[in-house]
Amino acid sequence: MVEIISKMLANNKFSAIKEMLIEMNVVDIAAMMEEIEDEENQVRLFRLLPKSSSADVFSYLDSDIQTNIVAAITSNELSFLIEDMFIDDAVDFLEEVPANVVTRVLAHANSETRNLINKFLQYPENSAGSIMTIEMVSFPETYTVKRAIQEIRHTALDKETIYTCYCMDDKRKLVGTVPLRRLIVSPEDTLIKDIMYDDDQLIFVNTMDDQEEVADIAKKYDLLSIPVCDKEQRLVGIITIDDIVDVIEEENTEDFEKMALLLPSEDEYLKTNVFKLYKNRIIWLMILMISATFTGQIIEGFESKLSLIAGLTAAIPMLMDTGGNSGNQVSTLVIRGLALGDIKPADYFRVLWKEIRVALLCGLSLAVVNYARMWIIKAVTGSDVSSNTFIVVCLAMFCAVIVAKSIGCTLPIVAKLLKLDPALMAGPMITTIVDALTLLIYFGIANIFIGYNLI
Amino acid sequence: MVEIISKMLANNKFSAIKEMLIEMNVVDIAAMMEEIEDEENQVRLFRLLPKSSSADVFSYLDSDIQTNIVAAITSNELSFLIEDMFIDDAVDFLEEVPANVVTRVLAHANSETRNLINKFLQYPENSAGSIMTIEMVSFPETYTVKRAIQEIRHTALDKETIYTCYCMDDKRKLVGTVPLRRLIVSPEDTLIKDIMYDDDQLIFVNTMDDQEEVADIAKKYDLLSIPVCDKEQRLVGIITIDDIVDVIEEENTEDFEKMALLLPSEDEYLKTNVFKLYKNRIIWLMILMISATFTGQIIEGFESKLSLIAGLTAAIPMLMDTGGNSGNQVSTLVIRGLALGDIKPADYFRVLWKEIRVALLCGLSLAVVNYARMWIIKAVTGSDVSSNTFIVVCLAMFCAVIVAKSIGCTLPIVAKLLKLDPALMAGPMITTIVDALTLLIYFGIANIFIGYNLI
Repeated sequence: MVEIISKMLANNKFSAIKEMLIEMNVVDIAAMMEEIEDEENQVRLFRLLPKSSSADVFSYLDSDIQTNIVAAITSNELSFLIEDMFIDDAVDFLEEVPANVVTRVLAHANSETRNLINKFLQYPENSAGSIMTIEMVSFPETYTVKRAIQEIRHTALDKETIYTCYCMDDKRKLVGTVPLRRLIVSPEDTLIKDIMYDDDQLIFVNTMDDQEEVADIAKKYDLLSIPVCDKEQRLVGIITIDDIVDVIEEENTEDFEKMALLLPSEDEYLKTNVFKLYKNRIIWLMILMISATFTGQIIEGFESKLSLIAGLTAAIPMLMDTGGNSGNQVSTLVIRGLALGDIKPADYFRVLWKEIRVALLCGLSLAVVNYARMWIIKAVTGSDVSSNTFIVVCLAMFCAVIVAKSIGCTLPIVAKLLKLDPALMAGPMITTIVDALTLLIYFGIANIFIGYNLI
Repeated sequence: MVEIISKMLANNKFSAIKEMLIEMNVVDIAAMMEEIEDEENQVRLFRLLPKSSSADVFSYLDSDIQTNIVAAITSNELSFLIEDMFIDDAVDFLEEVPANVVTRVLAHANSETRNLINKFLQYPENSAGSIMTIEMVSFPETYTVKRAIQEIRHTALDKETIYTCYCMDDKRKLVGTVPLRRLIVSPEDTLIKDIMYDDDQLIFVNTMDDQEEVADIAKKYDLLSIPVCDKEQRLVGIITIDDIVDVIEEENTEDFEKMALLLPSEDEYLKTNVFKLYKNRIIWLMILMISATFTGQIIEGFESKLSLIAGLTAAIPMLMDTGGNSGNQVSTLVIRGLALGDIKPADYFRVLWKEIRVALLCGLSLAVVNYARMWIIKAVTGSDVSSNTFIVVCLAMFCAVIVAKSIGCTLPIVAKLLKLDPALMAGPMITTIVDALTLLIYFGIANIFIGYNLI
């Protein structure tokens, strides 16, 4: 596809290209433009787009290409483009491009659009205000169905969605919503206020609400769009489901990052420079490395005995890994459960009781298999590890699994109660804590056996 | 709220409750019913629901409560309920409840519904067929806009969505889609086939496609619903955006689980019994524990030297953890990038080059700080660890970070190329592999120093 278009561009077959573009989906056009290597060709192709879809295609482009296009097109083209974009797309685009591009774009917007964009750019990151758009259908609650439908017909093409309409009282306060579906099946002379969802059924968010809350509400009520109000409950914008889906993916990515102890970043990996990546990672690596001082000290305190008994040191990594993995499994489940609302802090004791039973089963199976594993290694390598050492290792493993599972379900819930992010209590953090405890248990059990001269 | 309703139920204030329920959102009613402790009261409340919303509320209930209600209501009520539910909700419900409930429900459905449900229950889990519904608006492409809108008006209330309509040719093959928005702004005598999106712009999936693909397509094109066709491209159902959102969350949960090396499970944590939880966890715990044999053998081979040189053993956990954490950070970023399509296997060398530079920075910082850390501990505890041992540990740390970051970005991409799930190459797996390599590097470096009598 890209090759064909490139050839056609080279041969100046512009009208044929135009015909082709009309038949294509804007998302596919944007994807195709991104694959064209030559910047000049990207711009030429952009100029061949039908006027009605150029703003749409532009919204789907990468910020690099957007920047190139803005630099290449004329002032008139730029004015048209910026006026034709939905406000939320324009704001998204301006947040990503260099300051000089922002200046040029704003200079070519009319004053109303410019004021609007400036206002939107001021909402805090991740607030409802920063992701909303203003192209919604709204009318007074005193309209009839007939008048409302007429209004929709006339303005539909400039709206981001027409499928939910917003109803206001005479002070422009949001008082209800009405789905287009309801309008369409209602008699023409019905008053909007008689069919709108109001009072308890009216769902809206505030401009300053966090985008995660917005997504949770949209998911809970299966909404296609959600109205955004200011403090006086006046309608200032809407957030549509496609943006909600983006928020959901963003929040999930953030959780993945936090669980790997990365500072969350909204940039695509391949576009993030090395120093930024370094900065996002080094802090937690450093903290955890320094915390490992404890495990080091625990081993140092036991070092003299370790060297006397064959096989004790060799089992350390296995015990630490198994403990860490056991804790990691349950902390992941609990973190995810908390995020989705399936688990609440009040469920803590149910979770703990479940985990202790699972840990007994896991610990027992692992200990038994480990005994067999050590026995086989001894048989194969002929090492002089005593069978009482086997017992020490297996007992320590059993206890470590139980401790790890208990810690793994406790810490995320504690974090939630302390209003910290439970996602931080994932694998790496749990591993560091469980490692130290595992070693203490291990050396404690070994000490008892040594005390009785059993190993 | 729940207390008020419970009191009203106790005092038989049924008509007041009915009035209240009419004003409430179905999602909130379902949430409230779940909070009522007494099963009998749940059923009584359910019976007070307006007929028009009882099926809707039922769809949002937990499967336990659904089961109780089905057991308590009359045959007539059950027939009405099952006929009034959307097919996808009915199928979801039947997949969760015990077999005897399924039998009772199917016995009370009419034969058309029964056949349909049976057909839907046979689609493989996680296929497009298993999550679609049949309540869509479809008409021949030869209709006029006027006739199409008439048709929508008459059937709108029974449809899951009316906002995208599906157009068929005379063989019932799907040939185009038309958004309600387009219908509403078009002149009444326009033919549907002149305004529908067809050919290249027609997007649909097959009944057997995986739900993850469906979600990706919906996300890419910002669709509100997506048509599902059989092999002959005949329209058999649609999937709406609310179900797509559920799929997105399900797939994310699955990735979280796989990354913690849990077998994925679709059940809510608190409802999963202990043996199932055990089964989902023990397999990978066992595999990783057995793999730790390697690290054990590496240590055993070096044990005699470890005991001779103070401080070498104590650094093992810190080196292993730092290596594991470093690898975990990058594998998480790469797995997420692959899942969202930001990173492709073809980007491998770009990723690797980036990671090596980040690793150099991270490794260097960690090594320097670690040197200081060891020096402070020596000063405080007065241990006899030589400063050449410091150098061995810091050098090993530097190399381990570089190896860990390289492995962490390589394995997920290799998994993707081998058509395995990259999510398996996350934290625990990376840790096990990196642990062994870290120890080899550590002992290798120590050996060189020992060879030259430096420690």
